[in-house]
Amino acid sequence: MRILITGAAGMVGRKLVARLGKDGTLNGRKIAALDLHDIVPPQAPALEGVNVAIHTGDLAASGATQRLVASRPDVIFHLAGVVSGEAEANFDLGYRVNLDGTRALFDAIRLADFVPRVVFTSSIAVFGAPFPDIIPDEFHPTPLTSYGTQKLMGEALLADYSRRGFFDGIGIRLPTICVRPGKPNKAASGFFSGIIREPLSGQEAILPVPRSVVHTHASPRSAVNFLIHAAGIDGASVGPRRNLTMPGVAVTVGEQIEALERIAGVEAVKLIREEPDDTIWAIVQGWPTRFEARRSRELGFVAEESFDDIIRAHIEDELDGRLRCRD
Amino acid sequence: MRILITGAAGMVGRKLVARLGKDGTLNGRKIAALDLHDIVPPQAPALEGVNVAIHTGDLAASGATQRLVASRPDVIFHLAGVVSGEAEANFDLGYRVNLDGTRALFDAIRLADFVPRVVFTSSIAVFGAPFPDIIPDEFHPTPLTSYGTQKLMGEALLADYSRRGFFDGIGIRLPTICVRPGKPNKAASGFFSGIIREPLSGQEAILPVPRSVVHTHASPRSAVNFLIHAAGIDGASVGPRRNLTMPGVAVTVGEQIEALERIAGVEAVKLIREEPDDTIWAIVQGWPTRFEARRSRELGFVAEESFDDIIRAHIEDELDGRLRCRD
Repeated sequence: MRILITGAAGMVGRKLVARLGKDGTLNGRKIAALDLHDIVPPQAPALEGVNVAIHTGDLAASGATQRLVASRPDVIFHLAGVVSGEAEANFDLGYRVNLDGTRALFDAIRLADFVPRVVFTSSIAVFGAPFPDIIPDEFHPTPLTSYGTQKLMGEALLADYSRRGFFDGIGIRLPTICVRPGKPNKAASGFFSGIIREPLSGQEAILPVPRSVVHTHASPRSAVNFLIHAAGIDGASVGPRRNLTMPGVAVTVGEQIEALERIAGVEAVKLIREEPDDTIWAIVQGWPTRFEARRSRELGFVAEESFDDIIRAHIEDELDGRLRCRD
Repeated sequence: MRILITGAAGMVGRKLVARLGKDGTLNGRKIAALDLHDIVPPQAPALEGVNVAIHTGDLAASGATQRLVASRPDVIFHLAGVVSGEAEANFDLGYRVNLDGTRALFDAIRLADFVPRVVFTSSIAVFGAPFPDIIPDEFHPTPLTSYGTQKLMGEALLADYSRRGFFDGIGIRLPTICVRPGKPNKAASGFFSGIIREPLSGQEAILPVPRSVVHTHASPRSAVNFLIHAAGIDGASVGPRRNLTMPGVAVTVGEQIEALERIAGVEAVKLIREEPDDTIWAIVQGWPTRFEARRSRELGFVAEESFDDIIRAHIEDELDGRLRCRD
């Protein structure tokens, strides 16, 4: 089993590499080679018996994707991309990386004449307001960001290239990944993780929106589970509609905070400071809230059952199972 | 008023040019210049007081679109594209013309820093089976052809470029254009027009599918009306969802034939020979049938009221109002 991962230096990429290293297998087959690509050098894990190769560069550069697929990987995880804020701020960069890079990868596979499983991380950013209360699987994607547009175009290519038999693709629309590890960032969605992550480490966190805001979350661990599951799923059972909205936990911000209190106590909750921010509130109001995700659930994709589970996953995976703050 | 038309040598393009020539105005303003582009030289109409320029070539060729938009047209009708069958048969050509050509045009406008109205002809081929009985405006596009995929990607670009303020775009998803003038062709959808056009000219026509097949049609005249209406519509009233499913007449093939009998008599209907073709039947079963088209109707797009009207439009526009065969 030979695996290629683009975007391997990103948060989800690093966790996927760690999981594959721990498992040693994918789809029941021993992992013999792992090709890791990113625009910056990904860390190379030391894995006994696995031939790990590091690749760096711009996927849209001439010849880059041809070299990447020359080893004919069995499974390709295409995670590479510039994030939403960057794609909005830098129009050319977003289209170059997220659209041209994706198309270059897909075309390199097509022209190399082998048929790998391709798992593509799309996003719920393909959807744009207004929405019904629960977004059904058949709801039309009308993105309100260039990032969402680029992901939607990647989805369309993935479905067409799969239909044509150039590869066997699965697109997974990730919900918001929460609790994101690491430092606070300036993403408009950052507070969803921040109001959990910071208090669990004894730090203050800002809540810029009302507690009534509803949003759908899955843990980083679930994101990796989705990727692994997508790598092994039977393409025929998916049919021609290759892009799937992943399941998640839909909760209000108030329910997130109640879960935090159950797990970490009232002292943790006191570290959340409400500081309304009209700019963030305006952005958040354009975001989708709840998804039906019927197809992905039927196809065996599993997320957490509750936001309590999402917090517990963060404590286990990022805090060695320990809380700094408990009353 | 300066107008650019790509795909001006095609059937709809020629009819649009003729209509603009007859009207002499667009959006209430006198037409001063008409730039006509296609891969083959479009016919130049002799129009008093209008500066008509002919352009030929590949839109995706370096510099081609920059030259086309250098005159900063007020309205751009982007009709150019290779058709469904050709895009399916020639993968590279379809993506080059329908995706790269469209993107090159949109980028040339963006970089020339002016904000024209862009009217883009998309297609109901963005939809793929299975469908509900009536496809609502919010139904997700999951194309089952490369042509439909390329049109969907063009729609996504149009919406994003409009949202960004690079131009003011309207995408119109045309239903099947019927009655297509001219000779029978090998398109799988050809019989929808053939069973009307051939008998009206005293010729035999083949019907390869059951009379129960439901399909949505608009006349070439309506297609031109859609384009003209889209050129003048207020972008703000359309909002960010810039791609609109056009109205049409949804009828069974049996109802098409009943309309033919009402207008041209039973002798015309006798010229239709039923010759089931499993290949065509299989293709047709994957096509959408009826559309809600609520938004486009609310925005003032108008199609025929009945299939009788569609036949009458053909007789008026293509047969000088005369029937060869009437009993």
